[in-house]
Amino acid sequence: MVNLELIKTIARESPTKIVLVILDGLGGLPHPETGKTELETARTPNLDRLAAKGICGLVDPVSPGITPGSGPGHLALFGYDPVTFTIGRGVLEAVGIDFDLQPGDIAARGNFATIDDGGLVTDRRAGRISAEECIRLCQLLDGLATEPFRVFVRPVREHRFVAVFRGDNLAAEVSDADPQQIGVAPVGVTALNPQADKMAGIANQFIAKAKLALADQYPANMVLLRGFSQRPHLPTMEEVYKLKPAVIASYPMYCGLAKLVGMEALETGTSIEDELATLEDSYANYDFFFLHIKATDSAGEDGDFNRKVAVIEQVDRAFSQLLSIGPDVIIVTGDHSTPALLKGHSWHPVPILLSSKWCRPDRVTEFSESACISGGLGRLPSTQIMPLAMANALKLTKYGA
Amino acid sequence: MVNLELIKTIARESPTKIVLVILDGLGGLPHPETGKTELETARTPNLDRLAAKGICGLVDPVSPGITPGSGPGHLALFGYDPVTFTIGRGVLEAVGIDFDLQPGDIAARGNFATIDDGGLVTDRRAGRISAEECIRLCQLLDGLATEPFRVFVRPVREHRFVAVFRGDNLAAEVSDADPQQIGVAPVGVTALNPQADKMAGIANQFIAKAKLALADQYPANMVLLRGFSQRPHLPTMEEVYKLKPAVIASYPMYCGLAKLVGMEALETGTSIEDELATLEDSYANYDFFFLHIKATDSAGEDGDFNRKVAVIEQVDRAFSQLLSIGPDVIIVTGDHSTPALLKGHSWHPVPILLSSKWCRPDRVTEFSESACISGGLGRLPSTQIMPLAMANALKLTKYGA
Repeated sequence: MVNLELIKTIARESPTKIVLVILDGLGGLPHPETGKTELETARTPNLDRLAAKGICGLVDPVSPGITPGSGPGHLALFGYDPVTFTIGRGVLEAVGIDFDLQPGDIAARGNFATIDDGGLVTDRRAGRISAEECIRLCQLLDGLATEPFRVFVRPVREHRFVAVFRGDNLAAEVSDADPQQIGVAPVGVTALNPQADKMAGIANQFIAKAKLALADQYPANMVLLRGFSQRPHLPTMEEVYKLKPAVIASYPMYCGLAKLVGMEALETGTSIEDELATLEDSYANYDFFFLHIKATDSAGEDGDFNRKVAVIEQVDRAFSQLLSIGPDVIIVTGDHSTPALLKGHSWHPVPILLSSKWCRPDRVTEFSESACISGGLGRLPSTQIMPLAMANALKLTKYGA
Repeated sequence: MVNLELIKTIARESPTKIVLVILDGLGGLPHPETGKTELETARTPNLDRLAAKGICGLVDPVSPGITPGSGPGHLALFGYDPVTFTIGRGVLEAVGIDFDLQPGDIAARGNFATIDDGGLVTDRRAGRISAEECIRLCQLLDGLATEPFRVFVRPVREHRFVAVFRGDNLAAEVSDADPQQIGVAPVGVTALNPQADKMAGIANQFIAKAKLALADQYPANMVLLRGFSQRPHLPTMEEVYKLKPAVIASYPMYCGLAKLVGMEALETGTSIEDELATLEDSYANYDFFFLHIKATDSAGEDGDFNRKVAVIEQVDRAFSQLLSIGPDVIIVTGDHSTPALLKGHSWHPVPILLSSKWCRPDRVTEFSESACISGGLGRLPSTQIMPLAMANALKLTKYGA
């Protein structure tokens, strides 16, 4: 495991720049007809040239066999052990809509749902109501908490929303109210320890008021809350690495995750070209850039092998712009694998390439899962990426005399 | 390190089946004349085909350089950190003869030994008395403890026996009575902490009574006890993995080790064909099978290179039967290496192959130490085999949101 305390003692500022490019869900599985993964199928001359110049390997976000969610996958990329540091479902949703969580706030993931006359859940997603409807209904619920507590209710998308409870001495250790099945009644929120009694009471009052407020809003006539959680305490990347870090991501959730470790979120567009333009514009102001590309993961989740190939090829074409900017250290990898064949995140290790003047190149000449097996980085936990990035940027001094 | 608590939270039941085939002491060293190990010398078309379809690597049972005994070697295979969880020598012997150890029982490994008129040890093994003699002498000693304590004395083989002490508040933290050399007197058992005073007293009383009872039994006129230990508390595989696991092994010790983690021991014969027939008969009733083959290790321990080659070839031939049963995940590896050249366990990493529909195959096309170096699994601790098996059987859900 990476020892953040050790890194802290040897990190130093320097003028060099690091760019960490994350193709979300990059790793794949071979297509049954060709025996090649998405990355192996894609034509990637720029990435291959970078692999040939650099050093490659395979990374495990958590540990072999473990399929990470986005939270653990990204914490590991930033160098934070994803088993020690955890991010609750509610916090992840709040972060995803860029809600400004305060210390002490308790966030819960909410669903609008349908209940019948007997109070039994008939649809956990209220027929997946529209975004507009979700916004309207959230306004009905926003502020429904009993004084001196406050609740913020914010739309996410379709039937999904975030409820953030604010007030003194609230604890997150409460059970879910979402029964996770239909044909049963929503369950009461219960405290999992005595410190959480207050939170459980407030959550149950809010749910009761929400039920009344939604009585005429069929099919969205109930709320289901789960994943009550508090913003984790994470040392910032400035504290650990002495970096001035920025995130460039088109999806709010990734900006939110990066902000949890102290990155500054830069305004950008939706394409890789937009993101690279943002990088170029802000290049002078930061020394670490986390550049996030979502479309690889979305294609994988949809089971669309060819679209994932196309996204990778588009990223590869855009890379000439990144190369012309010329960062001292470029790293390309993913937060986890999302093979189109599995239509979801998976446990397979993720190919990684690192290019820098000081990287000790290996014999790998293409960026692919198969080639990376023989790479000079070997197989390592994703938490070790940041120390390697820092070392290659000559931002770590000697450890010990 | 694998986090069993984490695995517990993401394990789920599913209809898929995992078969873990252990060739005890599989790894070897190259023959000086051919430069090939036992596994590389053996003709193994079935294993090679499986390697080509699957993913390979090398595993370290404990960590590089450490030669494991059977206890740590197998705990690691089952996913339990062999440094955190330990099995004492006495418990291992008791487990090896399938003695039903109760919580609180203290087991010790015993030797019949020879002492001279001056009380000095002249032979720590009493001339390796016969099995029949060992049985007869154990009957003399069985029950020799002072009330309210009981002692069970059971033969193992030749001069070896097990003594199990039963009673309230016995602690295992006592020193050995075996001086481990000749020409000196047996040493008294001493308590290593105050809680173990009672156990030390009872052990010394038992040894004194045993010496009297054996006075006329030259050369077996003394006992030497060591490795006092208690059955470790191990979470069961059902608790950790939600599996219904079974062990198929012809040697009682391996059934005993597997039973410590909650596996059910299935009656079987002595050959690999017998074990596979047992697997086929019980296939519907379990979702995890640990199939243990002892003969590779015995040949290695005997320094018989050619016999180890022949055993591996025999296993390979039998594999067509396993393939026709068609488990979702097949893993083939060993609990440690036993090179014929070293005539004993060794620290060398053990080749592993994993075959499943979802394994992301590498370019390895033969199952051998040399080829596995380039395998897609890389080099990993044996404790990570179980998470990988579970992942490939789609029995682990996502970790974190």
